[in-house]
Amino acid sequence: MDDCLFCQIAGGQRSAAVVLADEYCMAFLDYRPLFPGHSLLIPKRHIETLADLPCQGIKPLFAAAQLLAQAMEPALGAEGSFVAINNRISQSVPHLHVHVVPRRKKDGLKGFFWPRGKYTDAREMEIVRAAIEESVRALQGKN
Amino acid sequence: MDDCLFCQIAGGQRSAAVVLADEYCMAFLDYRPLFPGHSLLIPKRHIETLADLPCQGIKPLFAAAQLLAQAMEPALGAEGSFVAINNRISQSVPHLHVHVVPRRKKDGLKGFFWPRGKYTDAREMEIVRAAIEESVRALQGKN
Repeated sequence: MDDCLFCQIAGGQRSAAVVLADEYCMAFLDYRPLFPGHSLLIPKRHIETLADLPCQGIKPLFAAAQLLAQAMEPALGAEGSFVAINNRISQSVPHLHVHVVPRRKKDGLKGFFWPRGKYTDAREMEIVRAAIEESVRALQGKN
Repeated sequence: MDDCLFCQIAGGQRSAAVVLADEYCMAFLDYRPLFPGHSLLIPKRHIETLADLPCQGIKPLFAAAQLLAQAMEPALGAEGSFVAINNRISQSVPHLHVHVVPRRKKDGLKGFFWPRGKYTDAREMEIVRAAIEESVRALQGKN
């Protein structure tokens, strides 16, 4: 995809601060990091969202995510990591990318995972549960 | 692990609103969701963080994450999803879990991925890049 920023990086037409590259994927520093070291891991091929990732791409991509999350700690003196994918909503570039972010205690990011809500009652929860389960089964039936 | 909440769910000693289960992993509704449908996907075995996931567990776990993220959309009329792992920092239960959250435009969650910073200069960026790359290579050398 000529006009895709991440395809341009993968193809070498655009420079990036690459931290990892192999046959299937590559990772580079985000220019506007949550914290220094915040990296974006992408499949080299243009794949838009996690749902579009072919079955054989799952292991190479997530093995690299694991490696990168692990590497952050000794590299940057981090105490943990945050690994995240936005599919469509909040996805700034429509080329699948895994954010790998180094974390430390009291780094100020604790607020990112709320406000948390509650289900009104057990019935509401069961309706939601059953809808997802049914949809999972329908997708499994297709494959 | 007897005292692990998620091992108790995996072992059937504690109930949960299960949306997906297979040989390797299971997923259930978070009781305090970001949005209804917010699910937690776990390996059934006690594995603490992403770094601890054995190589052969990567594909089954992330294939299930992909399936679940995809299933959220028709099940709940979602327009996208957020898939995230906290390793150690902000990890409430020390048993690896993948958050899979349905997303919609203007759902109010846009603030969760900031404030974003900047590198002071190209030199700072290069120091960070080189440290991560070196750490990636050291870990690759071990495996």
